[in-house]
Amino acid sequence: MCKGRLFIVSGPSGCGKDTILSELFLRRPDIRFSISTITRAMRQGEREGQKYHFVSREEFLKLLEAGEFLEYNEFVGNYYGTPRTPVEVCIANGEDIILEIDVNGAAKVRSQMPEAVSIFIMPPSIAELKRRLERRGTETPQQIESRAECAKKEMKRAIEYDYIVVNDDLQKAVDDLASVLRSDGLKRDRQEQILDEVLKQC
Amino acid sequence: MCKGRLFIVSGPSGCGKDTILSELFLRRPDIRFSISTITRAMRQGEREGQKYHFVSREEFLKLLEAGEFLEYNEFVGNYYGTPRTPVEVCIANGEDIILEIDVNGAAKVRSQMPEAVSIFIMPPSIAELKRRLERRGTETPQQIESRAECAKKEMKRAIEYDYIVVNDDLQKAVDDLASVLRSDGLKRDRQEQILDEVLKQC
Repeated sequence: MCKGRLFIVSGPSGCGKDTILSELFLRRPDIRFSISTITRAMRQGEREGQKYHFVSREEFLKLLEAGEFLEYNEFVGNYYGTPRTPVEVCIANGEDIILEIDVNGAAKVRSQMPEAVSIFIMPPSIAELKRRLERRGTETPQQIESRAECAKKEMKRAIEYDYIVVNDDLQKAVDDLASVLRSDGLKRDRQEQILDEVLKQC
Repeated sequence: MCKGRLFIVSGPSGCGKDTILSELFLRRPDIRFSISTITRAMRQGEREGQKYHFVSREEFLKLLEAGEFLEYNEFVGNYYGTPRTPVEVCIANGEDIILEIDVNGAAKVRSQMPEAVSIFIMPPSIAELKRRLERRGTETPQQIESRAECAKKEMKRAIEYDYIVVNDDLQKAVDDLASVLRSDGLKRDRQEQILDEVLKQC
């Protein structure tokens, strides 16, 4: 069977990554999503196994020692990790899987799985990014400034990614991301099975 | 300005290549088509400059000597060539251009322009290819057999291409080809301009 592929998706907070991915999964329910394992407390509206697996610090460290994370990070006293097994199982089963992760995490995963295809989602400008964060209405002006500074740092690393999608129009950005996934499945090495079948008749 | 790209499209006679390309150009009128220069006589229904430039043998040889062909071929006493200048001008102007060509021509062009992206269009099976050729009704059973033999030889070289599109459903095949072109424009090196613009603000 033809192997699946890991797609790494990054982009600064406010670039529209979550909305783009939600739309993509509606169109492509066959694509899997990598669920992170984290030790922070569950927030209102969150559900176990939806976007995160919630575990204790002890459980996390046990998994870490067992080599169960493709990458992990400690942030404000909590651990965040990308489980290795589900990604490897998906790929072996010929399924594509998307991992949404920050630029540092992406670099770590890429170093372990260089065949992963990575996509950076950008806002059309820093001004537009700030407007989007303001529209959310969940952050103070100071927090928005700090997020914009973070975004600038992240965007300087867009060059590390295979593809760059600019989100100036939601549907266009979803079409863009969908085209990256679709075309990747048409690459010669991913069409070996059908090629072999037809060539058998030759 | 960001450079355009040359896309090489090949596939055996009867694979549906012409229909797929016609549909693609309806959707993407911005994409150019490389017009071949040939010395054979114009056939009924053909127009100068549509699919071919018709020139005399003398003109062809003059152009050949001037290095004006990316590749050329002699077949049953006629010359067929791919003009170099229009391809180079398109790419320099940031336009994408499609070259429809056989496997031998594709190999010659690829050796001169290794950055070209190549796509092989396959029928879903040899049996289906024969059915399609029969449905055309323009060839004798013997000619169909000979085309099928040719197709087999060509299909063995599908492995030389970057992407393989199987034409078992016309719209799906057009979507496939369109996704290859769209995603290629999202590659990091083709997004340099927008990346620079946004990063200037960082």
